[in-house]
This record gives sequence, C-alpha cells and structure tokens, in this order.
Amino acid sequence: MKIVIVGASGTMGTYLSKAFEAEHEVVRVDYKEGDVTVDITSPEEIEKMYKQIGAFDALICTAGPTHVGPWNTLDHNTFRKGVEGKMMGQINLVLIGQHYINPKGSFTLITGALTHDPQKNFANASAANSGVEGFVRAAAIELQNGIRINAVSPTVIENSPQYFPYFPGDIPVTMKQLEFGFRKGIFGANTGQIIKPY
Amino acid sequence: MKIVIVGASGTMGTYLSKAFEAEHEVVRVDYKEGDVTVDITSPEEIEKMYKQIGAFDALICTAGPTHVGPWNTLDHNTFRKGVEGKMMGQINLVLIGQHYINPKGSFTLITGALTHDPQKNFANASAANSGVEGFVRAAAIELQNGIRINAVSPTVIENSPQYFPYFPGDIPVTMKQLEFGFRKGIFGANTGQIIKPY
Repeated sequence: MKIVIVGASGTMGTYLSKAFEAEHEVVRVDYKEGDVTVDITSPEEIEKMYKQIGAFDALICTAGPTHVGPWNTLDHNTFRKGVEGKMMGQINLVLIGQHYINPKGSFTLITGALTHDPQKNFANASAANSGVEGFVRAAAIELQNGIRINAVSPTVIENSPQYFPYFPGDIPVTMKQLEFGFRKGIFGANTGQIIKPY
Repeated sequence: MKIVIVGASGTMGTYLSKAFEAEHEVVRVDYKEGDVTVDITSPEEIEKMYKQIGAFDALICTAGPTHVGPWNTLDHNTFRKGVEGKMMGQINLVLIGQHYINPKGSFTLITGALTHDPQKNFANASAANSGVEGFVRAAAIELQNGIRINAVSPTVIENSPQYFPYFPGDIPVTMKQLEFGFRKGIFGANTGQIIKPY
C-alpha cells in the first residue's frame, strides 16, 4: 500500500513513518523536508504535491498548526493560524486529494480531545479540531468510489511533555496508541468516524 | 435587558425580534437593514457595530451564510463562505464583543444538527457549525466577568420548507421551539452548551 504521511518530520509523523515503512511504501511529506514538501495552507502547493506523488492508497495527516496562547491574545488574526492550518489545510488535502487517491483509498486526519474537552490557551485548536470533525462526518457521505475518511483524536501525546501542564489530569496517549488509531483509519472499514485511540 | 439580534431581518431573526421586543430593548442588526448594519465577515465592521450599539446584555446571532450545493462544487473558494461567514463571523462577534458586553451578559450563537447529522450538499455548514461549537465550549472556560456563551442547534426550521427535501426524515423545529432555545441561552445560567431546542 502506498501511504502518504503529511507532517512526516514531526513527533507523530516520524514515529508513524517508521511504523509503516516496514510493510508499506511511505511517502514522507512535510513543510521543509521529506520526499515532498508542502505548505498545507496553500491549495496550489497541495495540488502540486499530489501531482508529484501520483496515485496513492492512503493519506494520513499529523500536521495541524494552531495558535496556542492566553485568551487575550486571540483575535481575528491569531485565530487564522488554526483556521488556515489545521482546519482548511486538512480539508483542502481531502477536497483536492479525492481526485488523486485510488478507489477504496482512505484519508485519516488529526484532531484532538480539545474538540469536546477544552483547555485554557487552546480555543483556536478546539474550533479547528471541531471544524475538521464536522467535515469528516459530512465528507464520509459524499466521497465516491469507496473512499473513506476518518480522524484520529488523541489527548496530549506522551512524547510532548511540554504540553502536560496545560492538560491537567489528562492521561497522555502513547505513540503506540496513536499508531493504532491511524491503523484503524487506514486498514479498517469504517468511515466518518472520530477515532479515540485510548 | 438590552438584546442585540444579529440577522434580525431573516426568518429566525424577524420572529425572535418580535418575541423579545415586548419585554426587552431589542437592537436589530442585519447586513443591509435594521437599527444597525454589519457585514459579519469583516472584523472592522463588527467593531464599528459594537461602537454604535454601546453596552448591551445579550447578543444572539441567527446569521450564518454557508455554501450549499453538490459536493463537486466544493473547493477552497466555495468553502470560504461558511468559514468566513457562519464560523469566523460568529467567532469574531464574540472575540470583539466581549469588550463591549455587560458583566454577566451572554452570547447565543446559531449552529445546527448538521454538526453531527450531515446531509448531502451541506458539508460546508457541517464544518462551520462544528467549528463554532468547539469555540463555544472553549470560550466558556475563558470568558471573564460571568459572561456566558452557548449555541442553539436546530434541525431544519418549519418556516424554511424549501430545505425540507434536503433533510429527509428530519422533524422540523418550530419557531416557538427555536425561541425557547434562545431563551435558554439568554436567560438560563449554563455556559458552553449546545442547546437542541427539540
């Protein structure tokens, strides 16, 4: 199976690339490095990325820039980071990628528990995550040729201890659990689901 | 109580204005008519609107432009309609309005059942609604001075029969039920809730 990993150089992407490349052809995509580079806030760059990659069977995305900071730093401009990045970036990966993916292929996006369990400083991510999840449910009834779409929604990740103080009481999701979540998206049969890997 | 109704000239807004003006001071706001006009896709216009209105106790919004149409008409550009309109428009009403609203005031936004119950042709609204709902939950733990925020999430509205064919099997929400939903947002004590008025 040819699996495209967007955000392949990040904490999650690096782990997932290693986990999948033993058995599959992995195409590593990231902002500045990888087999292919892309700025997911640009629909033109996404189109170019797909043209470089050619047909594929699964795309997983772990890239989700958002604005993190005190509530009083949130305004129309700072709020754009999550809207253009984690939300529209991932939505455009699907709207454009549906024309390149093989029949019965799958998209597995990244959201997070902030959708339903907000934390201070992360309102931008709560909105972006939620927007992606609403899109996932709607796209699932629209995509043709057996193409599926799901999202993996972890809590804070064990490999990102710098975030632990912001998520009091949240049991960190292990990288192995995260991998299981993406495995469900890629190799499972469901569509329109928000996969909670814990 | 001074209640600002954004979208006051629409089907919902007209009904709600009449329902509330007997007992409260209602400020009708809409795109082209009303006591004050505003294009909610413009943060500058929103700021100007609040300066014209002055301090207030509650804002309810029934304005939520989105792109409605077949899946193959959805792309980065058409998708913006809901992102800039129903989503960022309402989010900016709160981010800016928090500096004008009275202590213990409330914001009640509009979303819809498409968040969790998608229908064909409405993926843009599903994403925008969801984004607003994630924001509502996050803003509820951030807003100061007892300011509350909720959203009313109806199914298809009884006064919009043109949409009935797109919502097969959905029992239309009556205007009275919708009014009850907004009453809960304005006069209730909860915050961060998605109010389903049915």
